[in-house]
Order: sequence, then C-alpha cells, then structure tokens
Amino acid sequence: MSESFRIRSARREDVDALLLLIRELAAFEKAPDAVINTRESLLKHGFGPNPLFVCWVAETNGTIAGMALCYTRYSTWKGPVLYLEDIIVTEKERGTGMGTALFETSLDFARQNGYARMSWQVLDWNEPAIGFYRKYGANLDPEWINCSLDLYDKPMD
Amino acid sequence: MSESFRIRSARREDVDALLLLIRELAAFEKAPDAVINTRESLLKHGFGPNPLFVCWVAETNGTIAGMALCYTRYSTWKGPVLYLEDIIVTEKERGTGMGTALFETSLDFARQNGYARMSWQVLDWNEPAIGFYRKYGANLDPEWINCSLDLYDKPMD
Repeated sequence: MSESFRIRSARREDVDALLLLIRELAAFEKAPDAVINTRESLLKHGFGPNPLFVCWVAETNGTIAGMALCYTRYSTWKGPVLYLEDIIVTEKERGTGMGTALFETSLDFARQNGYARMSWQVLDWNEPAIGFYRKYGANLDPEWINCSLDLYDKPMD
Repeated sequence: MSESFRIRSARREDVDALLLLIRELAAFEKAPDAVINTRESLLKHGFGPNPLFVCWVAETNGTIAGMALCYTRYSTWKGPVLYLEDIIVTEKERGTGMGTALFETSLDFARQNGYARMSWQVLDWNEPAIGFYRKYGANLDPEWINCSLDLYDKPMD
C-alpha cells in the first residue's frame, strides 16, 4: 500500500468531488455524454430529508480519491436489500486497497443494518473484479439482461 | 382478450394475495425456498410511512391475479431511476394482456413523476419478453452480471 487513506461518510460539500469521480468513470467507460446528473440533484437526493442513497468517500492527503454509493432496493423474495451502485477509485489511486476498503465499508453497513442481502453488478469481462468478489463467496448470476428506457434528458427535479 | 381486468394501486389488505403471487413466481422458477419475505415485512416496508416500493395489482372478478412492484433507484449518471422489480401474472391469466397493462402502468408512473429512466431485467432465454421490450425501443445490455451476498436468512425487521 503506497499511501494511507481514510473512509468517511460523504457530506454536502463533497458533491463537486463526487461529480468529478462520476464523470471520470463515464469517460473511462467511453460514455462521457451519458452523465446527465447534476450537483443540484446529488445534493437534493443524497443530502436532504429522506435521502435516496448513502455514500462514503475515501480521502487521501485531504483529497477525495474514491467513493461508494449504495441504496435500498426491495426484493419481493428477500425484503430490503442493500445495493452497491458504484465503487469509483480515481485512476492514480488504484491498487492502493481503496476499492477493497470501500467494498467492505458497504458490506459492514449492510450487516449492521440487518439487510438480508447485499447485491451489485460487475461487467462480464472484468476478470480481476470477478475474482475479487468470488473470494467473498458472492453468488454470480449471468442469466439476467439489464433493460432500460430513457424518458427524459435531465435528472428528476 | 378473454376477460376484463382492472389495474389499481395495491392496499394493505392485498398483502396475502401479493405473497401468494410472489411464491407462485418462485415455485415457477424452481426456487420455492428462496422466498424469505413475510407479510409483516411487506406491510411495514410497502404500506407504512416512507414506503420502499409502489405496487399495483390487476383484479379480475374480484380476485388479484397480477402485480407489478417498482421502486426508486439512484443512478450516479441519471439521478433517480424507476426500477421495475417484478411483474407477476398468475398462470391461468397469462395471455390476457395483464402483463402489458402492468408494464404500461409502471411506465406511465415513471413518465408522470419525471424519472429520467425506467429500468428492469429480463432472463436471457425469455425470448417472448425480450421481443416485447424491444417493441418499446428498450435498450438491452447483456454485459453485466448480477452479484449478491446473502447475509441473513430472514428479512430486515
């Protein structure tokens, strides 16, 4: 591990840094235009009353270099499930253990809050990530196809 | 269409009928033991303050024969997204248009409430469903694998 970092809950003032990480991920996945989210939407939906998600950041030398974002889904079979939407670690901090720490923070949160299950997705070509998740004993199910219909070109107010 | 039905919002007193449909789906998918959900959890998380999901039922001759269950997810790229977790139609009512009506009820709800996207999943071998969704212009992305870790064998209190 080349340098130390700490994980903490995200705060309102982190929103610009979160948006930079979100855009970095989209650029990395060659879909920079897919991000229509805004700082106003992140503030409203994450840091107001009845937040739609929980978020942690990884800080190193006073800079936010990683994030994890989770929310509750409702499985008709399992009841409330914690879903890990994204772990993002900025390119130069990869390999430092930051992604592992963010994953384990999410898993601890799920256990401590009594969620029957934590779930997430992985790209089918991402062998290192698949190997990482298998070490935790995760169940991987490739039978499902993601479907979506885009309705509006701006985030919900 | 062999008989008429109506779609309405689910109510507390529908919970036993919902659980029967949920168990019918699990039996059909040869996973009857995967359902750990309970009526108490459905009541608490769907019909109390701050519900985790919205649900519609399809009624025919005073009997609940179908359901759709949706909730809000948070996409870091799109903001709030409506997710269609399940459409279930009891076996003898399939082919009556009930599934289509439940799908369109969910889509109308997403549009009317300003969600930038509606999303859901389909099994990769379910050609009729895939064809149905393609008619709506849905984007289908098979690159993602569902991952999960089961933490407890009962639903969250």
